[in-house]
Amino acid sequence: MGDAAREAASTLPPEALVSDVGSCKQSIAASLAVALPNNTVIPAHPVAGTENSGPDAGFASLFRNRWCIVTPPDATDLLKLTALVEFWEALGANVEIMDAAHHDLVLAVTSHLPHLIAYTIVGTASDLEDVTESEVIKYSAGGFRDFTRIAASDPTMWRDVFLANRDAVLTMLQRFTEDLTALQRAIRVGDEKTLFDHFARTRAIRRSIIEEGQDDDRPDFGRSDHEA
Amino acid sequence: MGDAAREAASTLPPEALVSDVGSCKQSIAASLAVALPNNTVIPAHPVAGTENSGPDAGFASLFRNRWCIVTPPDATDLLKLTALVEFWEALGANVEIMDAAHHDLVLAVTSHLPHLIAYTIVGTASDLEDVTESEVIKYSAGGFRDFTRIAASDPTMWRDVFLANRDAVLTMLQRFTEDLTALQRAIRVGDEKTLFDHFARTRAIRRSIIEEGQDDDRPDFGRSDHEA
Repeated sequence: MGDAAREAASTLPPEALVSDVGSCKQSIAASLAVALPNNTVIPAHPVAGTENSGPDAGFASLFRNRWCIVTPPDATDLLKLTALVEFWEALGANVEIMDAAHHDLVLAVTSHLPHLIAYTIVGTASDLEDVTESEVIKYSAGGFRDFTRIAASDPTMWRDVFLANRDAVLTMLQRFTEDLTALQRAIRVGDEKTLFDHFARTRAIRRSIIEEGQDDDRPDFGRSDHEA
Repeated sequence: MGDAAREAASTLPPEALVSDVGSCKQSIAASLAVALPNNTVIPAHPVAGTENSGPDAGFASLFRNRWCIVTPPDATDLLKLTALVEFWEALGANVEIMDAAHHDLVLAVTSHLPHLIAYTIVGTASDLEDVTESEVIKYSAGGFRDFTRIAASDPTMWRDVFLANRDAVLTMLQRFTEDLTALQRAIRVGDEKTLFDHFARTRAIRRSIIEEGQDDDRPDFGRSDHEA
């Protein structure tokens, strides 16, 4: 990204506003600031998309009712910031202003950790000796299939995301592992109360996500087999 | 379940075929065999459903193109087994015959482990100090929301599933944890090749699940925002 930006630098007029749509913001902000010292750089991240990448994966409503996080550096020109915000709002997005470090922490838990876990469990399921891959596929409607969508995301992009946001991802992963170990212990010792209490408190978030319009409350998100 | 079956035992004619639809099969098979010594007991498990429980959560196509696993004990009467298979086929399901121990291992990876992980990550995300629950909800379209559906499942049922299938769940969890630790190390040391190779091999399973009709290939399973 730094190289591409340096190449573009000589052809950019000084009044040009430069932005990006990457998944991590601190590392990209630093690279772009060095590569484009004469331009206003305002990183942004539209939290939208599917497991597919590239121009062909777009669709008209891609950004509608999704959040775009804009991370302006200190002392960003207010007129330029307003222009970028209006650009994203014109595409249908809601815009939130945030500093880049906080963005990277928030996305570590709402996006990067979920992808890492999904990639892991799909790999674990493929490597079993006693359960065939064909069985994993046939009985995936029991829950496994929900993880496979994001585990089909672009491997190059995700390798780069984990390395660019390493510290925040490792912090979130450490917390996840502690929590998983506590539930593992509860299963091993038969601690019914710990299991029930944990499972009972995770329902509210699902309801809020649907109320906020970030997911679909039809059974299985309206997967087509229910409409058949 | 054993108690309910014992109560029913006195009112059941000896020719009655008894089955169930629970998520674990070894423990239920043992309980039912003790509670109903005079009846033919053939456990079954339709791998279908949503995060909602109870009669109101049903819909006409619930079992269509889903697999129902039937786990007949040794020496099960073939006519009775055929009757049960035909019952499930009449509801639209495909039927697979399997022994109860293998069922419990297969479901530990395709259903129980995914639920445990989903419950864990939703709990982890709710407990952060630096990221608010409102932020987790707003930016959930980055991947997190895919986990929240199954983490909204019935807590009583899932407490019982993990305890009834404890050994197989702990075995699968151990493998998952090893695999996650390997990826964590790759992130920490910046091992690009290990990350890329792992992420590249998990796409094929997704394609197979869609080809087998166990999921929907529309973007985001056809979540309604794409149809807007």
